[in-house]
Amino acid sequence: MSGVDRRPRVAVDVAGADLGPEPVVAGALAAAATTDVVLVGPRERIRPLLPGGVPPPGVRLLDAPDVVGMADDPVAATYAKRRSSLLLAAAEVAAGRADAMVTPGNTGAAVLAAAARLGRVPGVTNPALATVLPVPDAGPTVLLDIGATATAQPEWLVEFAVLGAEYARCRLGVEQPRIGLLSNGHESVKGGPVRRDAHLLLAATPGYVGQIEAYDVLGGRVDVAVTDGFTGDVALKMYERTLDATVGLALAAVRAFSPIGALARDRERRVTATVRRGLAAEAGGALLGVRGVCVVCHGAAGAADVAAGVDIAVECVRSGVVTRTGVAFAASSRRRRVVRRVAVDG
Amino acid sequence: MSGVDRRPRVAVDVAGADLGPEPVVAGALAAAATTDVVLVGPRERIRPLLPGGVPPPGVRLLDAPDVVGMADDPVAATYAKRRSSLLLAAAEVAAGRADAMVTPGNTGAAVLAAAARLGRVPGVTNPALATVLPVPDAGPTVLLDIGATATAQPEWLVEFAVLGAEYARCRLGVEQPRIGLLSNGHESVKGGPVRRDAHLLLAATPGYVGQIEAYDVLGGRVDVAVTDGFTGDVALKMYERTLDATVGLALAAVRAFSPIGALARDRERRVTATVRRGLAAEAGGALLGVRGVCVVCHGAAGAADVAAGVDIAVECVRSGVVTRTGVAFAASSRRRRVVRRVAVDG
Repeated sequence: MSGVDRRPRVAVDVAGADLGPEPVVAGALAAAATTDVVLVGPRERIRPLLPGGVPPPGVRLLDAPDVVGMADDPVAATYAKRRSSLLLAAAEVAAGRADAMVTPGNTGAAVLAAAARLGRVPGVTNPALATVLPVPDAGPTVLLDIGATATAQPEWLVEFAVLGAEYARCRLGVEQPRIGLLSNGHESVKGGPVRRDAHLLLAATPGYVGQIEAYDVLGGRVDVAVTDGFTGDVALKMYERTLDATVGLALAAVRAFSPIGALARDRERRVTATVRRGLAAEAGGALLGVRGVCVVCHGAAGAADVAAGVDIAVECVRSGVVTRTGVAFAASSRRRRVVRRVAVDG
Repeated sequence: MSGVDRRPRVAVDVAGADLGPEPVVAGALAAAATTDVVLVGPRERIRPLLPGGVPPPGVRLLDAPDVVGMADDPVAATYAKRRSSLLLAAAEVAAGRADAMVTPGNTGAAVLAAAARLGRVPGVTNPALATVLPVPDAGPTVLLDIGATATAQPEWLVEFAVLGAEYARCRLGVEQPRIGLLSNGHESVKGGPVRRDAHLLLAATPGYVGQIEAYDVLGGRVDVAVTDGFTGDVALKMYERTLDATVGLALAAVRAFSPIGALARDRERRVTATVRRGLAAEAGGALLGVRGVCVVCHGAAGAADVAAGVDIAVECVRSGVVTRTGVAFAASSRRRRVVRRVAVDG
């Protein structure tokens, strides 16, 4: 729909979130002010949450009786639950009835559903989830993969670099993103065999600056930090938990010299707002490498997070992430074929 | 020296730190108020940093002409630089002329030097570096490995659990530490093949509570968080960088409603002190699984960090970490032999 002058349409998976369907429906209805929304989930659980039991204007209800829970094995659930909200939401996008899908459900199952119904961008072995972390006094950083994969081969990390660079172009407006490979040191001997091999392969990727440490993810040295989904999950959760803990302690310190009750509360609000606005990670990760827009929110996403996830999806649609990753991938595949040929012939 | 009534003796590696020998010598001299110190490094670089060019009482100088830098390959440096401060400091401990060593140098080379000169605790395949993270509103958490290894086999993670539990007993005084395996989810299907296997093996380890997420490392759910050195390095650096960034933003928010210059600065100091006291990671990691105490500080450790590293080393000596890990390991090896026999016979 890039360039088309109409409201974007987003399919929202209402089943399988940690906090039940209530905050998801509330967030989707809030997003419906500017976006057409398809609520996908068990009809009888969604209806009671709609005003008067009826979808308001701009909102459509799509019954999906099968629910994939957080504890479900993604592969088994994808094969057994054919009418899950995940597979039906992805099918809406595949059929062109929605421009994007948003889910706070089981991440592994969401990735499989998107890959199954939307297909992968040609040349992509594994799709990757990307998020945007703000960096004080510098531009934000794209971090990927944050959980679509559990381990990674060197070649996948190269693919993630291409996907992440395109995401940085679309979301951050950075023309030539600087790409770093998350490792345990800057030296090329670091990182174990998978990262050492990826480091060598990445030399052919435009914008690659080398191995980086976790410090650099928030350090303004790179626009894209590439890692496997296991390490990305740990890094992101460590980030979020440390942020929470630090805000809590900063508030305690502020309280220590705030004399009056109401004034103290006002100050606390301002400190919290400043820090969170400055540092909070985005409410959802974009699944890159599939032929459609899919945003995965936290399992415990609140209504505001779901609405923010819809905003991310709309921005991905408007900036044409899918088309652009396809083009970038075709170029990258050509480059790698040349590199391989040179390596073989040389 | 556990139980011996004399000043502890700590060998401090003065070469190879990021900031040069100055802060290391300054920190070691500060520690010499309560601890006998051996300064190990190139004599001509240390002498000018001593008052009057002579070691003060309680301080000894040990010339080590070979310097291992941060960019040196640990294996190559260990074999080529036989008179490095790392190998000589470890030899002091091995010969009983020092009770512990402290180094802000190349981590990989420090691990190899300690393993080579001190030997490993029988049953330990790989030593691990452990740090203590404070957790607001709960007891602190031991996190290991934070960088002695780059990858891990399932069996090594089980060894790390035994080492970490003993460290928690010695340093935190927790009698029966709760142990978690750092993963990307609580479900046993998560974490990839290495962690899934480790999860099964860990079932026989007393105190094991299952797979945990990075959230839980600071969540008061466990006393020991076990992971490979690559993931531990990323988690710790993400933690430290997020803490710094959050403190910076919290200060900006405090400044926004602090009217007077001097008062503002006083408030800033108080916020920073409260947050850092509450959340700062320890200045050094203890190398567990070798037959001697070795503490590795940050490469960019300041004088206060080096002195704090000496304090950690002294606490490890006093609590008898080495003896206790040896005993724990002997017990754990017996247990695993039984488990293996049951598995084979059953």
